[in-house]
Amino acid sequence: MNPDAFELREGERVDELERNDYGIIQDPKRFCFGMDAVLLSGFVRVRPQDVCLDLGTGTGIIPILMEAKTEGAHFTGLEIQEESADMARRSVAGNGLTDKIDIVTGDIKVASEIFGASSFNIVTVNPPYMAGGEGLINDNPAKYIARHEALCTLDDVLRESSRLLKPGGRFFMVHRPNRLAEIMCTMCAHRIEPKRMKFVQPFVDKKPNMVLIEGILGAGREVIVEEPVIVYESPGKYTRMIHDIYGY
Amino acid sequence: MNPDAFELREGERVDELERNDYGIIQDPKRFCFGMDAVLLSGFVRVRPQDVCLDLGTGTGIIPILMEAKTEGAHFTGLEIQEESADMARRSVAGNGLTDKIDIVTGDIKVASEIFGASSFNIVTVNPPYMAGGEGLINDNPAKYIARHEALCTLDDVLRESSRLLKPGGRFFMVHRPNRLAEIMCTMCAHRIEPKRMKFVQPFVDKKPNMVLIEGILGAGREVIVEEPVIVYESPGKYTRMIHDIYGY
Repeated sequence: MNPDAFELREGERVDELERNDYGIIQDPKRFCFGMDAVLLSGFVRVRPQDVCLDLGTGTGIIPILMEAKTEGAHFTGLEIQEESADMARRSVAGNGLTDKIDIVTGDIKVASEIFGASSFNIVTVNPPYMAGGEGLINDNPAKYIARHEALCTLDDVLRESSRLLKPGGRFFMVHRPNRLAEIMCTMCAHRIEPKRMKFVQPFVDKKPNMVLIEGILGAGREVIVEEPVIVYESPGKYTRMIHDIYGY
Repeated sequence: MNPDAFELREGERVDELERNDYGIIQDPKRFCFGMDAVLLSGFVRVRPQDVCLDLGTGTGIIPILMEAKTEGAHFTGLEIQEESADMARRSVAGNGLTDKIDIVTGDIKVASEIFGASSFNIVTVNPPYMAGGEGLINDNPAKYIARHEALCTLDDVLRESSRLLKPGGRFFMVHRPNRLAEIMCTMCAHRIEPKRMKFVQPFVDKKPNMVLIEGILGAGREVIVEEPVIVYESPGKYTRMIHDIYGY
């Protein structure tokens, strides 16, 4: 990675992604991507020629990792916060990916108006985990919007995804297990049938704190629950699975 | 256990339950209980004085184990097949439990008419796993009815459970993960909100083949997905978890 290829503003840095020598611009005062984004990019199954959209892309981590890991034809990231979208655009440019990745500033709630119905094979999303009033209110708006359903709800995400996907198109989301019932019912309500799930456990004997879900628009009812991802072998030591997903 | 306390018919035997010195009458040509029933009895949380109903009780394994493991006040098993219900009644008598457990012959589809609405604190069910036309048709009707939704569907089970439970009453089911989306949506449709789940994996690195679910009638939306049950430590060797649930 050549850090000089990235145009940085004050407080920003470039972090290496360990994939295709790519980097990403982040500002620790705003929001840095977490393991959830990386796990989602490892869970997604993209076919050659698939056209992909990431809802609420933040600094663009998911389209950049997906471009590195898959043979998808094109990737779009939609982000409501202009400052994050701008960072994402500069990361895309710094990695020389302007022909493969577009970053669009806009609102998930009207995403199907922005892009038109049935325009993507794949929709990915790492949405805010916390419903409206829950959790501590963070005085940092960028972090707050990324974590709380302040600007869009799970229902908005699924309604728009259902409109945006082509028939048989695939939806991939990372979320928290405590909202699983709501997730599945909302998916079914919008005809995105849950087809594959994977829980993420910090340790082999601990309950999961993340869940990865694949849904297919208009599919029949049958879910595969895969073996869980275990994050740590022992405190501070990642498992082989995690090293494989991170790519080092 | 005193086997002479059990009245046996041709082809039947008494198996020890390793709990309270109880036994159960089984006929291997009909249907023998499996690990799913034992896991369900270990997953259930019953409070002292709870009045409990087991839907599709078969030979009565779940009420008998629950009587041994919990402080519930009374247990009823509903079974549509008279021959199985009769075996269950003889097991209840053999264990000296006729004042604690009733076995009723009847149909899950009209269970709320049989017992009346809002009459139980707890409903348990180990239902047929396979939807209508799925799977091999077994020429043994007792086994076929226990495994396939020949006589009742998931929707019947949840509709009747919702009627049978008192407000705040709890529902416990063991099922297959491949039907999870349908299970959760049907639970929500009948206001039995999924509150606790536990997957059962044969080995630590294998996908789950059973799921245990607790729902609460009229509760809010929040699920706890617990750490999974791992069945085998190595081929043929049960884990400590399984020994604890079986009680030896």
